[in-house]
Amino acid sequence: MKINNIFFTKKNYIYLSEILKTLGQKKSIGKQIIKNISDLNNASKYDISFFNSQKYLELLKKTKSKYIITEKKYEKIIKKYSKPIVVKNVFKSVASVTKLFYPDSLNDTVDFDVKVADQNKFKRVKFGHNVLVGKNVKIGINTKIGHNTIIESNVVVGNNCLIGNNVIIKNSIIGKNVRILDGAIIGKKGFGFFPEKNKNFRYPHVGIVIIQDNVEIGCNNTIDRGSLSNTLIGKNTFIDNQVHIAHNVEIGKNCIITGQVGFAGSSKIGNYVKIGGQAGVSGHLKIGNNVEIGGGSGVIKNIPDNSKVMGYPAKEIRKFLKENK
Amino acid sequence: MKINNIFFTKKNYIYLSEILKTLGQKKSIGKQIIKNISDLNNASKYDISFFNSQKYLELLKKTKSKYIITEKKYEKIIKKYSKPIVVKNVFKSVASVTKLFYPDSLNDTVDFDVKVADQNKFKRVKFGHNVLVGKNVKIGINTKIGHNTIIESNVVVGNNCLIGNNVIIKNSIIGKNVRILDGAIIGKKGFGFFPEKNKNFRYPHVGIVIIQDNVEIGCNNTIDRGSLSNTLIGKNTFIDNQVHIAHNVEIGKNCIITGQVGFAGSSKIGNYVKIGGQAGVSGHLKIGNNVEIGGGSGVIKNIPDNSKVMGYPAKEIRKFLKENK
Amino acid sequence: MKINNIFFTKKNYIYLSEILKTLGQKKSIGKQIIKNISDLNNASKYDISFFNSQKYLELLKKTKSKYIITEKKYEKIIKKYSKPIVVKNVFKSVASVTKLFYPDSLNDTVDFDVKVADQNKFKRVKFGHNVLVGKNVKIGINTKIGHNTIIESNVVVGNNCLIGNNVIIKNSIIGKNVRILDGAIIGKKGFGFFPEKNKNFRYPHVGIVIIQDNVEIGCNNTIDRGSLSNTLIGKNTFIDNQVHIAHNVEIGKNCIITGQVGFAGSSKIGNYVKIGGQAGVSGHLKIGNNVEIGGGSGVIKNIPDNSKVMGYPAKEIRKFLKENK
Repeated sequence: MKINNIFFTKKNYIYLSEILKTLGQKKSIGKQIIKNISDLNNASKYDISFFNSQKYLELLKKTKSKYIITEKKYEKIIKKYSKPIVVKNVFKSVASVTKLFYPDSLNDTVDFDVKVADQNKFKRVKFGHNVLVGKNVKIGINTKIGHNTIIESNVVVGNNCLIGNNVIIKNSIIGKNVRILDGAIIGKKGFGFFPEKNKNFRYPHVGIVIIQDNVEIGCNNTIDRGSLSNTLIGKNTFIDNQVHIAHNVEIGKNCIITGQVGFAGSSKIGNYVKIGGQAGVSGHLKIGNNVEIGGGSGVIKNIPDNSKVMGYPAKEIRKFLKENK
Repeated sequence: MKINNIFFTKKNYIYLSEILKTLGQKKSIGKQIIKNISDLNNASKYDISFFNSQKYLELLKKTKSKYIITEKKYEKIIKKYSKPIVVKNVFKSVASVTKLFYPDSLNDTVDFDVKVADQNKFKRVKFGHNVLVGKNVKIGINTKIGHNTIIESNVVVGNNCLIGNNVIIKNSIIGKNVRILDGAIIGKKGFGFFPEKNKNFRYPHVGIVIIQDNVEIGCNNTIDRGSLSNTLIGKNTFIDNQVHIAHNVEIGKNCIITGQVGFAGSSKIGNYVKIGGQAGVSGHLKIGNNVEIGGGSGVIKNIPDNSKVMGYPAKEIRKFLKENK
Repeated sequence: MKINNIFFTKKNYIYLSEILKTLGQKKSIGKQIIKNISDLNNASKYDISFFNSQKYLELLKKTKSKYIITEKKYEKIIKKYSKPIVVKNVFKSVASVTKLFYPDSLNDTVDFDVKVADQNKFKRVKFGHNVLVGKNVKIGINTKIGHNTIIESNVVVGNNCLIGNNVIIKNSIIGKNVRILDGAIIGKKGFGFFPEKNKNFRYPHVGIVIIQDNVEIGCNNTIDRGSLSNTLIGKNTFIDNQVHIAHNVEIGKNCIITGQVGFAGSSKIGNYVKIGGQAGVSGHLKIGNNVEIGGGSGVIKNIPDNSKVMGYPAKEIRKFLKENK
């Protein structure tokens, strides 16, 4: 978590007092300026950070951050190294501070800066009818873009890509030789929020979508951008139609993802993984390299390298088939 | 079932003789005019109604309707209170009569009345490129509407809404602060019909879609309108991408519905319900308040308040996890 | 497999030497011209064919083809009847040769030949705004086509059809009285390829999509065209929203396919089949007539006529319900 991208404007600094006020802190603990919010590992001495589990103790000891958002129960331990800022809900407070630094990270409004593509600006790109392109968009040579497609501001598309019809791309960087098929929607904010009675409180989404070279994205895919990290599709991975990929998911290279598969947020998928149709992968899981997941499976725990699984919940495939003879 | 909306023109009355002819009745039983078709409870003395189960006996005794569509086996009992009209298939006959009253309820043709949005007519609405707006559309102030979106005739959109790109809305009333994300399709007729050999016979769909305040509808959602009642999404409910909501479904307030979930027709979902990715809810079920349904579940029976379920078919979650350790 | 269609230009002949070179053969076995690639049964004496299983032995004995692509282990047996061309991977070699004959079968680029529909060319068709129509398109009388829809070159649409908004149709022949609802994407190449390290090797897709009379295709459906045969939707079959139909799938007549169902490649579905929401059918299966598949089921083997199945994997429905009481 050290976001520095072209899509979301970051404030250079915020007074600590403003942050404390946002977090509902009564007493002030300093007049410093804060330059960013980062995890313990990446924080500079001008950054605020957070601590929510004993397992990060080693990182806490070494962090350069002087101000740590945390829960009551960790207050004492943090005092040994930095100044604790005690809150009720660490994640929600991190979200609030992130919003302070990235005030437009949740707008996700329509990009009204787009204009019908100007062939003079992109001499070696071929555009269909009614293609809308935002500000500061970069498109590589020999790329073709289909009818009614929208490329929002700041998006980067590599050389030799084929972007189909009715595609919508925002907050994304696309490599070379990528094919994005008709109707795919890429880069909107993820489905992350804290439920509240009258109006849910959304996570900021300052991550982007990165699609590497030679990837194919199927029709009507939806790929959400990351919240505090990026959503990533690795080289030469092929994805079939109607697949949904939630925020922060990372898919390795040379994977084959068939129709109607879904990934919940933040799961990491290895290389050379094959996933059958309609399978689902829960959030925050780690799927190893060379894993094969049978069609219709529901994966709810980590899968080690080279495994073949099937079932709901997914288990070793021979076991599944034996039990279901 | 007492539809009175702005989307479907209702005939003021129909001669009983025409109704009987439509239902294939040989003998005439009166020359009256009939003003509507309603359930036993809501029927006025000018309305035709229907009876297809002993459990509605008390309603039958009190109904004001004088003409009741029914099956042969209920003929005698109905004679005590009203005039029975005996048919082979009560639901199909009700559908036929509903069509007589609402002759355009099944057209679902393209709305050729739409025109590119006229900024002068909607001074405080912001439109993208190529937004198409039908006749008699109402759009609240500060609402933004994305590129290539279609708002068909008679649709109502509240204040401060964000309607994305490539969205299609018909036969719907949308509240305030609602976000409808790119590619969502809302308000088409439901997937209801009586199978027939050469050409299936469709239910009329005179219901609409109602989306209450603060709701978010994800990308590429499909939400069908109701047949004889409405499809409803309650306040502050958030719905992720690629969710399908069939006709007559009612979802309560403050629900969280994640990606690729599907609801079959006419199910009623309580408040504060959370549903994991790819779960499915069968038709005509009642899901209580505060229910949690695990990802990938298949719900095929009613779920009481405050339950946590998972599995296919869905069962108490601890049981599911224990059985699948 | 004997494709002869209007969508993919076939070369009239190719020198055998060029084919052998493409297949990495060192020694030449003749200077003949080859007119096509066909299965053993359909091959003329000018066509190349292929053999990859003992079960086709009878066809091998009778084939007119003089050149047979095969594996090392079948070399001897083939020598009795024809000239074997020994390769490592028969299917991949067949794909390579098919590409030689149909060099544009994999382009699947944007159709830049489309233009805004010209009412003078289609006098009895009603077009919405921004409808794009390719070259040599045929559209029947009284057909209506919605806003922003794209009908690519050579597509045929019958009389009295209703094509919704944002629909994309390519490489397809559509019958009479067909309704294709908003957002459906029909006719792109299937998700078939041989995985390779740097750039996957795609199957050619020279098949098309055929949709017969009175069919309804739901919103946001994706229906891929066939590779070496066609994808087919039979008469009066109704398909709900968000259904995915892979390449070469054949669905019979009068079927009812509900929301979010998925079909993997090459499965054959009988007539009068009913499939509940979110069910999946694996590839290369045969589902009989009058079969009912419960919602959420995962079908991984053939299903005989008149069966009712449910579950994952799908089994006889009474068994499933009994086991899950």
